[in-house]
Amino acid sequence: MATKFSELRERMSPEAQAMAQAKTDEMMAEMPLQELRRARELSQKAIAEVLHVSQARVSKMEKRTDMYLSTLRTHIEAMGGSLDLVANFPDGKVKISHLDEPTHV
Amino acid sequence: MATKFSELRERMSPEAQAMAQAKTDEMMAEMPLQELRRARELSQKAIAEVLHVSQARVSKMEKRTDMYLSTLRTHIEAMGGSLDLVANFPDGKVKISHLDEPTHV
Repeated sequence: MATKFSELRERMSPEAQAMAQAKTDEMMAEMPLQELRRARELSQKAIAEVLHVSQARVSKMEKRTDMYLSTLRTHIEAMGGSLDLVANFPDGKVKISHLDEPTHV
Repeated sequence: MATKFSELRERMSPEAQAMAQAKTDEMMAEMPLQELRRARELSQKAIAEVLHVSQARVSKMEKRTDMYLSTLRTHIEAMGGSLDLVANFPDGKVKISHLDEPTHV
């Protein structure tokens, strides 16, 4: 069984492996948008099609270091995910609500 | 002991109570920016002073529904916290990195 599982892991992309490993460790994987897209096994073209924009625009967006919350949220939703904005304090975490809530809820 | 604790809770602001309750329940409190500021027992004036902007600007910012990631991060850092961008997928969570990383690290 262990061999089969490790073989399965080996067939995954390095990004997908990182995501699976983090889950095993009960840690959260941390990666830039471009790596996240690869971990989801999606191409820029696939994202572009969902968002009705050009592939060049997706490429450009992945290189940005700052953007509107709505842009980031739309991009993550195009990957099939949802975005949480989490404020960390020494005594706890708080999810920020009422900020660019998804329009399809 | 229980009485003393409940008395302590009663003296807290409703927002701080919500944050404490969520921690007890091991759930994450969820609130808009304005409530988060109150939970931290901070005034708009205090935030404005940290950010070297007017109180009116802080007030305006708290009413916005979309903004740059950097704006949100700066605001949360002014409250003594840090911002995490978390993408949720059915099979796990991923922290988005390389996006408007804090400049003071």
